[in-house]
Amino acid sequence: MAMKTRADYLASLADGRRLFADGVEVGPDDLFTNPQFAQSIRLVADGYDKHYRPGAEASGPYFTIPTTIPELRETLADLLGWDMVTVTTSQGLLALLTAAARIRAGLPEHADRIERYFRWCRENDVRCVQAITDAKGNRKLPPSKQDDPDLYTRIVERRPDGIVIRGAKLHISSAAISHELVVMPTKNMKPGEEDWAVACGVPVNAPGVRIVNTSYAPRDREDDFPISREHNMPEGFIVFDDVFVPNERVFLDGQTEHSATFAHALGLWERLGGTAHLAEQGDIMVGLAQLIAEANGTDTVSHVREKIAEMVIYATLVHAGLEAAITNAEPSPEGWMFPSELYTNAAKHYGAAEYSRMIRHLHDIGGGAILTAPSVADFRSAEVGSYVAKYMRTMDGVDGEYRARLFHAIRDLTADAYGGWNLVTMLQSGGGLYAQRLVARKHFDMDRAKRLALAEARMPAHLVAAGGESRS
Amino acid sequence: MAMKTRADYLASLADGRRLFADGVEVGPDDLFTNPQFAQSIRLVADGYDKHYRPGAEASGPYFTIPTTIPELRETLADLLGWDMVTVTTSQGLLALLTAAARIRAGLPEHADRIERYFRWCRENDVRCVQAITDAKGNRKLPPSKQDDPDLYTRIVERRPDGIVIRGAKLHISSAAISHELVVMPTKNMKPGEEDWAVACGVPVNAPGVRIVNTSYAPRDREDDFPISREHNMPEGFIVFDDVFVPNERVFLDGQTEHSATFAHALGLWERLGGTAHLAEQGDIMVGLAQLIAEANGTDTVSHVREKIAEMVIYATLVHAGLEAAITNAEPSPEGWMFPSELYTNAAKHYGAAEYSRMIRHLHDIGGGAILTAPSVADFRSAEVGSYVAKYMRTMDGVDGEYRARLFHAIRDLTADAYGGWNLVTMLQSGGGLYAQRLVARKHFDMDRAKRLALAEARMPAHLVAAGGESRS
Amino acid sequence: MAMKTRADYLASLADGRRLFADGVEVGPDDLFTNPQFAQSIRLVADGYDKHYRPGAEASGPYFTIPTTIPELRETLADLLGWDMVTVTTSQGLLALLTAAARIRAGLPEHADRIERYFRWCRENDVRCVQAITDAKGNRKLPPSKQDDPDLYTRIVERRPDGIVIRGAKLHISSAAISHELVVMPTKNMKPGEEDWAVACGVPVNAPGVRIVNTSYAPRDREDDFPISREHNMPEGFIVFDDVFVPNERVFLDGQTEHSATFAHALGLWERLGGTAHLAEQGDIMVGLAQLIAEANGTDTVSHVREKIAEMVIYATLVHAGLEAAITNAEPSPEGWMFPSELYTNAAKHYGAAEYSRMIRHLHDIGGGAILTAPSVADFRSAEVGSYVAKYMRTMDGVDGEYRARLFHAIRDLTADAYGGWNLVTMLQSGGGLYAQRLVARKHFDMDRAKRLALAEARMPAHLVAAGGESRS
Amino acid sequence: MAMKTRADYLASLADGRRLFADGVEVGPDDLFTNPQFAQSIRLVADGYDKHYRPGAEASGPYFTIPTTIPELRETLADLLGWDMVTVTTSQGLLALLTAAARIRAGLPEHADRIERYFRWCRENDVRCVQAITDAKGNRKLPPSKQDDPDLYTRIVERRPDGIVIRGAKLHISSAAISHELVVMPTKNMKPGEEDWAVACGVPVNAPGVRIVNTSYAPRDREDDFPISREHNMPEGFIVFDDVFVPNERVFLDGQTEHSATFAHALGLWERLGGTAHLAEQGDIMVGLAQLIAEANGTDTVSHVREKIAEMVIYATLVHAGLEAAITNAEPSPEGWMFPSELYTNAAKHYGAAEYSRMIRHLHDIGGGAILTAPSVADFRSAEVGSYVAKYMRTMDGVDGEYRARLFHAIRDLTADAYGGWNLVTMLQSGGGLYAQRLVARKHFDMDRAKRLALAEARMPAHLVAAGGESRS
Repeated sequence: MAMKTRADYLASLADGRRLFADGVEVGPDDLFTNPQFAQSIRLVADGYDKHYRPGAEASGPYFTIPTTIPELRETLADLLGWDMVTVTTSQGLLALLTAAARIRAGLPEHADRIERYFRWCRENDVRCVQAITDAKGNRKLPPSKQDDPDLYTRIVERRPDGIVIRGAKLHISSAAISHELVVMPTKNMKPGEEDWAVACGVPVNAPGVRIVNTSYAPRDREDDFPISREHNMPEGFIVFDDVFVPNERVFLDGQTEHSATFAHALGLWERLGGTAHLAEQGDIMVGLAQLIAEANGTDTVSHVREKIAEMVIYATLVHAGLEAAITNAEPSPEGWMFPSELYTNAAKHYGAAEYSRMIRHLHDIGGGAILTAPSVADFRSAEVGSYVAKYMRTMDGVDGEYRARLFHAIRDLTADAYGGWNLVTMLQSGGGLYAQRLVARKHFDMDRAKRLALAEARMPAHLVAAGGESRS
Repeated sequence: MAMKTRADYLASLADGRRLFADGVEVGPDDLFTNPQFAQSIRLVADGYDKHYRPGAEASGPYFTIPTTIPELRETLADLLGWDMVTVTTSQGLLALLTAAARIRAGLPEHADRIERYFRWCRENDVRCVQAITDAKGNRKLPPSKQDDPDLYTRIVERRPDGIVIRGAKLHISSAAISHELVVMPTKNMKPGEEDWAVACGVPVNAPGVRIVNTSYAPRDREDDFPISREHNMPEGFIVFDDVFVPNERVFLDGQTEHSATFAHALGLWERLGGTAHLAEQGDIMVGLAQLIAEANGTDTVSHVREKIAEMVIYATLVHAGLEAAITNAEPSPEGWMFPSELYTNAAKHYGAAEYSRMIRHLHDIGGGAILTAPSVADFRSAEVGSYVAKYMRTMDGVDGEYRARLFHAIRDLTADAYGGWNLVTMLQSGGGLYAQRLVARKHFDMDRAKRLALAEARMPAHLVAAGGESRS
Repeated sequence: MAMKTRADYLASLADGRRLFADGVEVGPDDLFTNPQFAQSIRLVADGYDKHYRPGAEASGPYFTIPTTIPELRETLADLLGWDMVTVTTSQGLLALLTAAARIRAGLPEHADRIERYFRWCRENDVRCVQAITDAKGNRKLPPSKQDDPDLYTRIVERRPDGIVIRGAKLHISSAAISHELVVMPTKNMKPGEEDWAVACGVPVNAPGVRIVNTSYAPRDREDDFPISREHNMPEGFIVFDDVFVPNERVFLDGQTEHSATFAHALGLWERLGGTAHLAEQGDIMVGLAQLIAEANGTDTVSHVREKIAEMVIYATLVHAGLEAAITNAEPSPEGWMFPSELYTNAAKHYGAAEYSRMIRHLHDIGGGAILTAPSVADFRSAEVGSYVAKYMRTMDGVDGEYRARLFHAIRDLTADAYGGWNLVTMLQSGGGLYAQRLVARKHFDMDRAKRLALAEARMPAHLVAAGGESRS
Repeated sequence: MAMKTRADYLASLADGRRLFADGVEVGPDDLFTNPQFAQSIRLVADGYDKHYRPGAEASGPYFTIPTTIPELRETLADLLGWDMVTVTTSQGLLALLTAAARIRAGLPEHADRIERYFRWCRENDVRCVQAITDAKGNRKLPPSKQDDPDLYTRIVERRPDGIVIRGAKLHISSAAISHELVVMPTKNMKPGEEDWAVACGVPVNAPGVRIVNTSYAPRDREDDFPISREHNMPEGFIVFDDVFVPNERVFLDGQTEHSATFAHALGLWERLGGTAHLAEQGDIMVGLAQLIAEANGTDTVSHVREKIAEMVIYATLVHAGLEAAITNAEPSPEGWMFPSELYTNAAKHYGAAEYSRMIRHLHDIGGGAILTAPSVADFRSAEVGSYVAKYMRTMDGVDGEYRARLFHAIRDLTADAYGGWNLVTMLQSGGGLYAQRLVARKHFDMDRAKRLALAEARMPAHLVAAGGESRS
């Protein structure tokens, strides 16, 4: 056992996995050139390169768990420099281990399997994604009441040596280019829903697994997509068509009382990562706004300055929430340091809810050329290159192509396919605004707030005794 | 002279015009198949078909001017059914005639030229666009102080029989597929800036004109772009490289005192059309939100209902603003009916400022499958078609492909290339939020509001006399 | 029978009514001097003066019903000039008549009683208020499940000649100084709740009626409260302690199927009136903002201008909503012209939801002297009068006392007792934001929006047939 | 020298100070009973009691300066328990010392005077307020161009032993009941404005000082004002009518280059204190919202839960900003620990800007009884006490008076005189939203954000070299 190199990783993808895109199957030969996969594979391969250390004992830093507040702060800083699959590997396994700790009392064998699985992943230096969101069918009905029982992933057969699962998992970023699918229940299951209470580890190439992919990757004119040509990942719609899972990889098989443990453990880490990402995006958007205002010569205009200041305050508050989530972290019984649920969710909600307004500011500052700046290819044209350079230029030091590229970056990040992906995922990652309000409310110290309010109201003690706090 | 047919229109495009896209020239042979132009040409050709009536006296309804409030209401309703080039033809010529009326006292010959030009356009049934936004260079400096004098379009030579102009006009939708460029100054020019005070009519194929195009048209997988594959228009970056304009087509040549007249006349009609468009978009977004909530089974969830109700209120208020703009229309001296500037700008501002928040609601309601719904092609695949149909389905009556297509429509309209174009143009059309605030403020009856306020404050008369109103 | 004069009205208040304030009873002798009642009585008396015409046939314009759109527009304009009790008389009786029309088929005798009651009110020129909001107790439970059955007003005894009612009605503005309490159920009653399905007319001085009053009227330093010293009305907490109502005045006594008819009829008129009030307040707030900015010398500061422009847009949009509600009014079967529910509720929601933000703008523009401007009495002081005049003055034409009085008006309207009353009632009148969202949603043409959305999505017909519209 | 007791403090107020309210002078005999002063004096006296320690060396903790991050955190926590005058004493002297450090190089003698003054204040245990905001006159003009030169406080005479000042200082909370007025320039002065560049310490009872007071203190029915009856402070309009200040107490007399030093030093501490206050208020408002929802039985209603969750997120984010301001504090050259300007201003801006929206939520949740709940005196009435108790009660455990008192607390805090004071001061303290945006922008690391943005845009190096960063 040893860490994988870039070459190891690239070779590992030719493992019989079945990937689809735009209605056709993408085989191993096409994988490295197909615009929906090529760049994402390159990113993950770069990650292997970057982290590789020789020796049988070596393992990636994404397999360690912070146990102090400074470590937690450092992990979060590192994570922003990792590719998305490395991030999900770290978060997913961390969540699995958290779940192991919580189910050990009731399910010691399952907990042991998780720990062995974790060690196996580390030793083989694989990349994992969390396969959590089910198809869900009619949201008004629970899994067992859907007219098609497969709309939530379920156990269709129990054998002595393992289980057979059927169903689909949606919105699974990077599934197609990773190794392991960590399957978890999407929500709490109730008694009678034992077949849907299933968690397990499934290799991407297991028989019966098919992944239908979508992508915001640019398919041509890559120069005009400076951000998404670098950062894209395929989104997987994973089908489990009666996939066999050996017992050793089954982490939950019918114990409904533990069914929500996995998702809860994952949620916090996902939202923390999402908040860190929003904080970074906030800074970048401020930078883009300031650069384009300077390039346009509007950086001293009063309403432009006001909008940039609002963007500064936005980015700063998301950072503050992150900071407070770390400063108020608390250790789990295992000694792992968990960020504050309250601050994490409050910051994530604010960052997500106000994101579209910050985009509006950036668009208001930039102007219509966000959409209509000539292509980088136009700047290379013998016929029109000199014209677009001449007319996109604004002043000494602001070259026409420089300014056009700023507009392309803004369009790519906020007003094109990747921009749309950002708009939706900033909202939906970690469960939508509603879920974040719910969790923030749950972790707020409401009893303290009620005591403060009663004191402020100078409520006579005999009236408080009769009412108020008894209902908290 | 007679109205043009579809065939006449298609033939008219092979007139030597010079169009560029992605760095290469697009000649007449490629024009009808290039994805950046093909569909937009089809839309305009359909418009010719739809309006065609035989006879030398026939002319399109887009060449008539409303003179009563009911006519104005009807024109606005019709306009929503026209292709964009027909809309700009109507608005642009209306604006030109308005300008003619306003400059007639000082420049009778120029006013006459405009009327003759209008008749010529009507008789030849051509399509026109307004070429207004200049390159602008450094926004801190006026046209005459830019280090490159061409950053605002200007007269570089005056000859006995005409003028020669140089410069660029940006963000000119549909320029490449229309016939006439109605050039106007982008802003008020001051004494000393006579060379930049130029308005004229230039054929798209005039020697020296080049148009560099960008587009949000889908380039492949058209089935996944149900809206933008139908509705797209190229955006033109028009270069005037020493273009000669004969006197008969010169509408302003140095009279700086009239330089803002053209843009002001155009602004009102543009913002009115923009508001009508926002009102229609508002209704469509409500419909999409309700359909996807029903398809997901979340239409009875409290927070979903609240968000849809907010979207209903948004759409209704934009309609209300439009309604009030028409009800409060006032006739010009020529007897043309002009919508209320105050209500038009207030409604446009509200609709544009809150647009991104409505998109956020739609994304919050729809969920992540807005981005990750399988391609329509996946539904046709023998390998995965049945799976994606099975798992995208939610209940009886909600077919998987039906639901996927709803997600594609939402993504296309709000979270992909066309969605980004919408986000920016809803803000920027008619001049950005700042401009709309400015114009709304200008047309508000501030003296009346101050009188009401002083009365409400019971301000003693002798104190009012000393202060207050004298400054209004 | 004839219209009442001021003297008639003042005399009519000494009718044995039992009024309370601050824990003590206010008898007829104190009524005209008590600061909680004196000014409100003066306002109503002024209304009698203003409308009085001699002759047995004369009746007030507040007893007529608009039957055309221009009449509706005119009524609304008039209404803004009436005192609040005259407004509620008009709205309450209009609602009663509307209810009469709707219940006539099932309850012809009750409908006749309402019409006779209406004529009696007109002939006696009395003033009426709607007594609608019950105490409500635990909002989780219906009337019949409350542990105290009186928490919703109910019939405690049915006699041959009438009924006896018990309960309380809350937030009844002006009850103490009017003549008639028009009692209606606060919500829909269900079978089994016949005792709570009661509507009737009760004289303010009926035995068993007591009214506990609160008020935002200033109690001293009236000069510093230029608005609330003129405009205040007592809020009544009305107790019905086994009050007998003769059959002739009973409009509903147990017919639960008609129990919501009264409240619905009232809601529309209340919200229309509320919207008209918000539109007027919007203009006044713009005027105050502009006047104080001019007085401070900040009217040309960029961010101040922006905020005033936002206030202009707010006021204009509320006016637009009102305008559209009238333009889209529809006649009832009786030929009465009803404003559009959709536009009325959308405008009311917007006006109410954004009101507090407009107050924020006004406070941001005005500055701290809104709170700390010296009292008008300080300007009269020999010791400090000249100092406060000197230092509150800002420039020629802006007298110190003038500016202080502007600050007092702003404080009184937005940042003192009356300001607080405004903040809460703008939100709560007509039922809170939630209720307005509900009603707007209900009256929106959702089927049309869904059709537009399906067309925009180019949904194939066979898929639409299978899903979509069938659920609308 | 020793710390003062309550008795010492009360005796110290009879020192000849000249106080005015509502146009009349309030002498020492009336001071302790006048509702505008009595309670605020009691609060300050309580503070003396609480902090008193015997011995010549004892001094209050409000005279110490945090030098580590934990100390800073502790100071901030303590500060929330102090009366407002103790807070301003601490903040004002801290700011003075900060200014001393910054001017020492240029003005060593003035810096020494400040340190001696600080020691004198500590030894005499006096209470100080910062007198900073000038009358300002026409905001378009600088001090030296006003038509009345006294509109900014200025030196009218320079004598060998001191200076004579004239002018007014506005919005000076608690001035009337403290001992020392620390006068500072309200803004930066320019060369030629030497007479307005004045800072000094003036005793409240100095000849020529007059203070005109306003107040939101309740004047009667104190039971209905449970918060403001406890927490009120008079706001002072201080007139300096040729007041002599001996040299020893003059801290700046004409050195315009140092004129802004004092205000800047004060601003940070004021905004930090304001943010801490907002965080506490946020928690209290959540508590009130939850308590009233429980008392109404609406705590499980979906839209109520959503609004409370939004309030939770608001309060949490303000706390997060405060937390980040402390965690990122930096030491001054003197070793004093200063909170982060960036985080302090971002948090203050957010807290202030969203405050009115949180009030809206609280009003939406509470309902109309916020305004119309019967007076506490009504509950004591033999005639109506039992009725209001019966009908304000909602369920077992929710007594009618308990619920009424909750409504009174909400009204007092948010919808009456004190509520209005809160609305305005939350916005205006520390300089208005505009000022906080400005300062946040100034302290944001814009160069880093621009570098991140250029990297994200993959800007080719040769284009960056030509543009971008050179303008940062």
